[in-house]
Amino acid sequence: MIRLLRRLLIGRPLHNQEMAHEKLPKWKALAIFSSDALSSVAYGPEEIMKVLAIPGMLAYGYMGPVAIGILCLLAIITISYVQVARANPGGGGSYSVAINNLGELPALTAASALFADYTLTVAVSVSAGTAAITSAFPELLPYTVELDLAVIFIILTLVNLRGVRESSNVFVVPTYAFISGIIVLIAAGAYNAFTNPGVPVIPPESLAAQQLDWTVMFLALRAFANGCSSMTGVEAISNGVPMFKKPEVHNAAVTTYWMSGILGVMLLGISFLIMHFHLLPLEDITALSVVAENTFGRGVMFYYIDITTMLVLYLAANTAYNGLPPLLSILARDGYMPRYLASRGERLGFSNGIVLLSIFAAILIIIFKGDVEHLISLYAIGVFLSFTIAQSSLVVHWFRVKDPGWRSRALLNGFGAVVTALVVLIIGITKFMYGAWIVLLFIPIMIYILKAIKHHYNDMAEQLSLTSFNFAESFKAPKATNLVVVPIASPTRVVAETLRYAKSISDDIIALHVVTDEDAGKKIEDKWESWNPGIQLVTVYSPYRLVIQPVLDFISELEMQKCNYDYITVIIPEFETKKWWHRLLHNQTGWILRTLLILKENVIVTTIPYHLEK
Amino acid sequence: MIRLLRRLLIGRPLHNQEMAHEKLPKWKALAIFSSDALSSVAYGPEEIMKVLAIPGMLAYGYMGPVAIGILCLLAIITISYVQVARANPGGGGSYSVAINNLGELPALTAASALFADYTLTVAVSVSAGTAAITSAFPELLPYTVELDLAVIFIILTLVNLRGVRESSNVFVVPTYAFISGIIVLIAAGAYNAFTNPGVPVIPPESLAAQQLDWTVMFLALRAFANGCSSMTGVEAISNGVPMFKKPEVHNAAVTTYWMSGILGVMLLGISFLIMHFHLLPLEDITALSVVAENTFGRGVMFYYIDITTMLVLYLAANTAYNGLPPLLSILARDGYMPRYLASRGERLGFSNGIVLLSIFAAILIIIFKGDVEHLISLYAIGVFLSFTIAQSSLVVHWFRVKDPGWRSRALLNGFGAVVTALVVLIIGITKFMYGAWIVLLFIPIMIYILKAIKHHYNDMAEQLSLTSFNFAESFKAPKATNLVVVPIASPTRVVAETLRYAKSISDDIIALHVVTDEDAGKKIEDKWESWNPGIQLVTVYSPYRLVIQPVLDFISELEMQKCNYDYITVIIPEFETKKWWHRLLHNQTGWILRTLLILKENVIVTTIPYHLEK
Repeated sequence: MIRLLRRLLIGRPLHNQEMAHEKLPKWKALAIFSSDALSSVAYGPEEIMKVLAIPGMLAYGYMGPVAIGILCLLAIITISYVQVARANPGGGGSYSVAINNLGELPALTAASALFADYTLTVAVSVSAGTAAITSAFPELLPYTVELDLAVIFIILTLVNLRGVRESSNVFVVPTYAFISGIIVLIAAGAYNAFTNPGVPVIPPESLAAQQLDWTVMFLALRAFANGCSSMTGVEAISNGVPMFKKPEVHNAAVTTYWMSGILGVMLLGISFLIMHFHLLPLEDITALSVVAENTFGRGVMFYYIDITTMLVLYLAANTAYNGLPPLLSILARDGYMPRYLASRGERLGFSNGIVLLSIFAAILIIIFKGDVEHLISLYAIGVFLSFTIAQSSLVVHWFRVKDPGWRSRALLNGFGAVVTALVVLIIGITKFMYGAWIVLLFIPIMIYILKAIKHHYNDMAEQLSLTSFNFAESFKAPKATNLVVVPIASPTRVVAETLRYAKSISDDIIALHVVTDEDAGKKIEDKWESWNPGIQLVTVYSPYRLVIQPVLDFISELEMQKCNYDYITVIIPEFETKKWWHRLLHNQTGWILRTLLILKENVIVTTIPYHLEK
Repeated sequence: MIRLLRRLLIGRPLHNQEMAHEKLPKWKALAIFSSDALSSVAYGPEEIMKVLAIPGMLAYGYMGPVAIGILCLLAIITISYVQVARANPGGGGSYSVAINNLGELPALTAASALFADYTLTVAVSVSAGTAAITSAFPELLPYTVELDLAVIFIILTLVNLRGVRESSNVFVVPTYAFISGIIVLIAAGAYNAFTNPGVPVIPPESLAAQQLDWTVMFLALRAFANGCSSMTGVEAISNGVPMFKKPEVHNAAVTTYWMSGILGVMLLGISFLIMHFHLLPLEDITALSVVAENTFGRGVMFYYIDITTMLVLYLAANTAYNGLPPLLSILARDGYMPRYLASRGERLGFSNGIVLLSIFAAILIIIFKGDVEHLISLYAIGVFLSFTIAQSSLVVHWFRVKDPGWRSRALLNGFGAVVTALVVLIIGITKFMYGAWIVLLFIPIMIYILKAIKHHYNDMAEQLSLTSFNFAESFKAPKATNLVVVPIASPTRVVAETLRYAKSISDDIIALHVVTDEDAGKKIEDKWESWNPGIQLVTVYSPYRLVIQPVLDFISELEMQKCNYDYITVIIPEFETKKWWHRLLHNQTGWILRTLLILKENVIVTTIPYHLEK
């Protein structure tokens, strides 16, 4: 039953040889790798506006400069990441780059930041996608969190457990639909703005700006920090270089430029239209949706924009599923994460990592009640921290490699590292109270956990290693001796069978009987004598009517004496019933005893199943 | 930690010899056995009134006749139960009486009815006790269900798990305090009624009665059925005969008469006062509380009545804890209930039965939201069904025994049986739609369950019995042969140790290695050859990366061939980590494999624990 359901939902298992190694043309790669970055225009410009449109202050006018600042930062990061693609043609994110060039601590910092980053990508993109659709259909508003969770568990988790090919057109269509929609929106909006004689291109209230004192400066920097959320996902292409057609590095670089170009145009265009309409923050409706409504009216194009925005955002959430599970598997292979995150599931995806990511993102959405703004507060700092580490690693890399032109490359990445570090600082300070502290607290804790895991695996490897142990010698050692203890209840066929097995594995057997009633004990002893099975019977009287504790005590006692035996084996018969409810009719003494013995004592536990036939 | 908490809450374990066998004087026995019966005046008369005070109908006048009818019924049942005490000096309820005289089906019917009855006693008495206290302190009303559950789990369950002696004064004081309070209330109320010149003793509206047509008749019978709830608990003394001082039977009989006398006076008195004040049903305030308020005003005596009512009702709930767990233990000993209900816990109480009763009562209270009226609808039918069975059993008993005077005794019990059967019929018809159907449905289902349990135990006993099995022969049989399978992962010290144990228990060993990657498999095979442990290595390739399924398949295959071995033993090494969270770092393959093998296959599973030291 369960197996059938599983087959229906995630499909038949895939053979090792079915691993796909397809190469992507640029136009497809652009769509697949850039949905995360491009989709952030759905919330980025709005987040800038939200900070600057504080009532009672004249700060709206700083929107233009902040947007241009973001654009410059985008240019710097794009160039830096083209370098990353060059230095790292095998793919792999900032963790791989850092562990090769900077060492453990920066690598783990990057890993922790990426962990936060990917989880937030899912939470933010899903929430924003839902916000896009509830902007168009406000009747869905009360179900925001439910919709978010449905998308995460029913769509994203299942799709990724099935393991749809990354090259699938499912990923290509929404991205291009979204890009073209936004371009049309910007073109139409700009055309209206410049040709409508009665209305100013940018109304004076959108240009009003107080003089730059510390308060306004802080506000502008916070707006900038918020806007940096538009840049998440820029690194995706450089992580996926091996998937490009030859020449991989060149194609990846070209695609990066294209992506950044499109992103820049869209960012600037949306910011311009927000200023043109002088939008103010609205509860429950996204700014992008209002821009679309003001431009097109509530017609087909309006719904087209909201629906494609939703689709591309859900797609962006999906990119985290291509990012975190492989990262976790690399971390697991290096011993920083539980081993089982390293192995591929039935459908060749890293199933455990996929489920883990869904659970963490769902927790974030539930805690923050699906509110995009709160989540974005946490977002950008992790992203820029991992940018900084990647850039710094590359500086070290170029200094090591020293191939032609390494100086200018190192300079470029060095500049990128300084700028992104500065951004980390700006976000950390201006948004500390707004949630950055959570990430800044999370990263050291996560590093501690990663190290503790590694430590445990190292300890274990040491304890299990064969270096201090002579394998061949151990096989020459004399046959080990084994004392067998068989706890018995009443004299049934099961006892006879169990004793027969005990005799087959050892000559030293103790039958142990716990009595809660002295008379019953004597009866058993008499019966035992009449059977004469050639096995010693030990009777323990338990006046407090406990059964398990006396057995445990007896075995602990034996263990302490040890009596020259190499092993002590306890044999426990266990009934397996035909119908599930029959199980409720048997006390679970056997099962409890088995579990306690395995957990506590240093004895070997053997379970003999008796399958009842009716 | 858990053990300490347990000691604090339920005390140290008690020794078998600490079982109490105290004999009770009559005055103490009356208090202890009759709280259930006496406390029902807190709701009995009110339940009669509620049915008859239907707006638009003149039926209130039937309250007097109905109350007198109840009184007559009480007299008949009292005399019948004095007979039960005579016939059954060893104690034991209607189940024991029926299984000895009538056979399995009536006995199981009685057991099922008693099961429903005891559970309802807890639910009804606790709800009514809480209703008494919320009548005095209405601010507690919103917490009715919470209060009920707190009384059940914090007071009743714990007290009974501790096993306070039945003879404790805790049980004596509230009963007498309640009796004296109610007697004073009736006396004061009657004195006022008869001496107040302006007010009629019984106002005409309380005597208004329509002519007796079918509708009114049905209503009056339903009121009678409701009033029968006052008689629950009358059987308690006859079940506890062995606890009386000598001469036990005589003392028990005298005490029964006293109890019924007091109950009759209280029933009549409260019914009279309800009619005198012409009370109508009130939401959230009990009629007894209104009677007390009208008689004494809202002073000390008013609170005294409400508080002692609450106490005696909670005490009445407690009597079910003296009734159901021993009944369940008798049923368990007879094989109709899971065996573990038969054994006494640490404090000599039947702990499992106590917990079970609490859970069922709590479920009833939650379903019916602590509403007494709904619960009482279910109540009386079970009680009278078990009355009928007990009386009928006695008729059979007297016919068998034929001791002096048996004819008149049989006649008395026969009359009792007919009357109580008639009452069952009346309740079943008039209250069918009001909840009696639930009990009438429950009883056959419960009988089916009891029989199914017995059937399973019989089947099992047959499968395990030694009659078709020669014990002595089995010990003379040649030593059994044993094929050992050791699933191994990577070559560690653990594998070496495990193989050493395997060699100590058998000479026929297969090491089984599952590879998900062909190259890794070859490496292991080469290593194996260089070690040369003298054990055959079987490598199974699992291209779908499953590990557990191939092992299960391999073992099923072996089982089918069987190769002349008596047993197949699978040895599974299992890590026990030092810290709990380390467990999360190991995949649970060993544990899962062990569980699946025990559940599914007919092989013996041996677990070798490796306790990691750090």
